[in-house]
Amino acid sequence: MDIAIPLFDRFTALDAIGPYETLSRLPGARVTFLAAEPGPVQTDNRMLSIVAERALSDLTHPDILVVPGGIGTRAMMNDTQLVDWVRTAHETTQWTCSVCTGSLVLGAAGLLDGLEATTHWMAMDALASTGARPTGRRVVEQGKIITAAGVSSGIDMGLTLAAHIAGDKIAQAIQLGIEYDPQPPFDSGSPEKAPAEVVEICRGVEALIDAGQAVA
Amino acid sequence: MDIAIPLFDRFTALDAIGPYETLSRLPGARVTFLAAEPGPVQTDNRMLSIVAERALSDLTHPDILVVPGGIGTRAMMNDTQLVDWVRTAHETTQWTCSVCTGSLVLGAAGLLDGLEATTHWMAMDALASTGARPTGRRVVEQGKIITAAGVSSGIDMGLTLAAHIAGDKIAQAIQLGIEYDPQPPFDSGSPEKAPAEVVEICRGVEALIDAGQAVA
Repeated sequence: MDIAIPLFDRFTALDAIGPYETLSRLPGARVTFLAAEPGPVQTDNRMLSIVAERALSDLTHPDILVVPGGIGTRAMMNDTQLVDWVRTAHETTQWTCSVCTGSLVLGAAGLLDGLEATTHWMAMDALASTGARPTGRRVVEQGKIITAAGVSSGIDMGLTLAAHIAGDKIAQAIQLGIEYDPQPPFDSGSPEKAPAEVVEICRGVEALIDAGQAVA
Repeated sequence: MDIAIPLFDRFTALDAIGPYETLSRLPGARVTFLAAEPGPVQTDNRMLSIVAERALSDLTHPDILVVPGGIGTRAMMNDTQLVDWVRTAHETTQWTCSVCTGSLVLGAAGLLDGLEATTHWMAMDALASTGARPTGRRVVEQGKIITAAGVSSGIDMGLTLAAHIAGDKIAQAIQLGIEYDPQPPFDSGSPEKAPAEVVEICRGVEALIDAGQAVA
């Protein structure tokens, strides 16, 4: 079972690693990180590089496709090579998935037209612009397409997909293997739950990124 | 604020990426991945390489040290270079942290003697052998040492530490930024919560790894 995770400049690491850490534990899973060219790919904040082992052109028919997000997706929506590769791969995938703003790339490939989908809470308008119908649910399934919300939601998505592929017991064993018994010290993980002041801090950082004055 | 995350052969990716994704968002944070030598370091399942930008000897006095775990920690407990580096770094850190079996390396460096600490639920005996007093809590603070439970717990630990460093509002903004509003499809993230059959699946995989018949 080939699981392909395409990387690109300024992706967000946890978007990719959440699905990797869950799905790689499925029996028979082989996860491959890809990019336009093999080699290290830098994350959004430039503090980390993850190695793309193979080129996109080396693996065109994965069984499962997971597109991570990150500030880099804004450029990737217009990257013909990646968008075309996603569109072609989707024709033969068993599952096509995204985390965070990875859904913008699925949308740019025309895969979400008229479908419910999700993304990072600050990117809902951008998602709507691709023809998708944005929803606030954390993991959104539409046939073989699964989109997940911001960054950390890829763990929940990975476990959901693991259950579809291998059954509840294996998915539960993967959850136990990664000891995913979340106990965040705060309850501020969504804009509905976070204090207004905290939402504004996030929007302020986003504005700095838009203005090129912050890196991620 | 220098945050050092040492990598080693067969570490677990999410152990490192959870703290990275949270702590890198602190104002003034600079996260550096290190290894014995700079270059790509393979994870436990050999499906992923993360780049160590610098050698351990290049950064000996980080402000924050986070040691990830993984099956590779069993060898690292006897790796004089890493253990000595951890012991020396700890002398001047503001915070010394571990995720999962990373605490075994802290223990091997003599940092946990007599202290409460935690690790992956399947490694509690190994942790006790270092002189620590294992507890089942998810994030365990003892002075400037913070140990976290298995794999995914590094996200909770990262947010807890972020609050200590920059205050609750910034930590909450980081939680919102990574949309950490966990909604796992099952409640099997700890051995107390998972069905007995699921616990046995995990123990069976562990036995295969011990016998060299499975990779992670």
